[in-house]
Amino acid sequence: MMNVRDYIMKNIDSNFEGELPFRIGHKEVKAGYIFTDFNQKAQNVYFLKTGIVQIEILRDEELKILDFFFKDAFFASYSSLLTHLPSDVCIKAITDCTVEIINYQELKMAYSDSLIANKLGRSETEKLYLRRVMREKQLFTQTAQQNYQSLIEQYPEVIQHIPLKDIAKYLGITPESLSRIRKKIMT
Amino acid sequence: MMNVRDYIMKNIDSNFEGELPFRIGHKEVKAGYIFTDFNQKAQNVYFLKTGIVQIEILRDEELKILDFFFKDAFFASYSSLLTHLPSDVCIKAITDCTVEIINYQELKMAYSDSLIANKLGRSETEKLYLRRVMREKQLFTQTAQQNYQSLIEQYPEVIQHIPLKDIAKYLGITPESLSRIRKKIMT
Repeated sequence: MMNVRDYIMKNIDSNFEGELPFRIGHKEVKAGYIFTDFNQKAQNVYFLKTGIVQIEILRDEELKILDFFFKDAFFASYSSLLTHLPSDVCIKAITDCTVEIINYQELKMAYSDSLIANKLGRSETEKLYLRRVMREKQLFTQTAQQNYQSLIEQYPEVIQHIPLKDIAKYLGITPESLSRIRKKIMT
Repeated sequence: MMNVRDYIMKNIDSNFEGELPFRIGHKEVKAGYIFTDFNQKAQNVYFLKTGIVQIEILRDEELKILDFFFKDAFFASYSSLLTHLPSDVCIKAITDCTVEIINYQELKMAYSDSLIANKLGRSETEKLYLRRVMREKQLFTQTAQQNYQSLIEQYPEVIQHIPLKDIAKYLGITPESLSRIRKKIMT
């Protein structure tokens, strides 16, 4: 099971030694736990050690699923952290999860003089940015079937853990359309 | 007129002294100049000293305007830089422009050990990320009139320098709808 320090050594700087420039909290939560709720001011960045998390947003008074996060990844209501405005997304554990927690104020203080904190912040923000751009691009240029296939190629575990109605919500289609797509792919 | 060094001292680290960890190129271009074209691999990050730049994207075989950049800001085909894939946007000068140029390979090398390079990269990527999220949110939750009003409040110079048909393209509406909105606001 990977933790923040392992992640940094694997993805950010293989030569990193010494103390992390921020404290790490630990938490185990049950499926359904809400990390950041709608209209709540986000305060933490989370690292997902085990489990699956989903990010929901309200659009046209309907609940949409914006993203899923799987183990070995950071997640947060990042716009809320950056702007200090109330979150317009809800972050929910959809399986039992184990997380490490970094307080964002502490991370920001570390940004003032820590190379590794800035490398981590830069690299993770680049990933989030790309994720956003790619998702937008998929929505504009790919069919629902292509989007479904990308999703299950990238995250085969989706099928076992996420209800079909939620996968449909993520793809922006009805559960019936998703069933048709699944039948088509399997035949 | 602000340059990269001034920008860093104003926005990133007021105590910054010494050499920048990358070279700075200079360029003056005419209106119409293309910084990065569709399908071209982006290689540089630009800092806009004077002028206005527009970012175009093809969607459903139609040219849309994704964003405008004004003086004292960095711009680039950032997804292309991050992924090394050909650019799916075109970046065009819509007035004469003066820019400073940073080669992205050099910036990436600076990321390996320079605190100021990482601070700059982190902070600018945060801004780009927020810009993207805010724009998406506006498209979903605001009317075209609200979007137009936000645009001219934030960038009053838009009106003088950008043709109405391009502002309409940016807002995703017809030039006729934009005329109606403008009349409504002015009365």
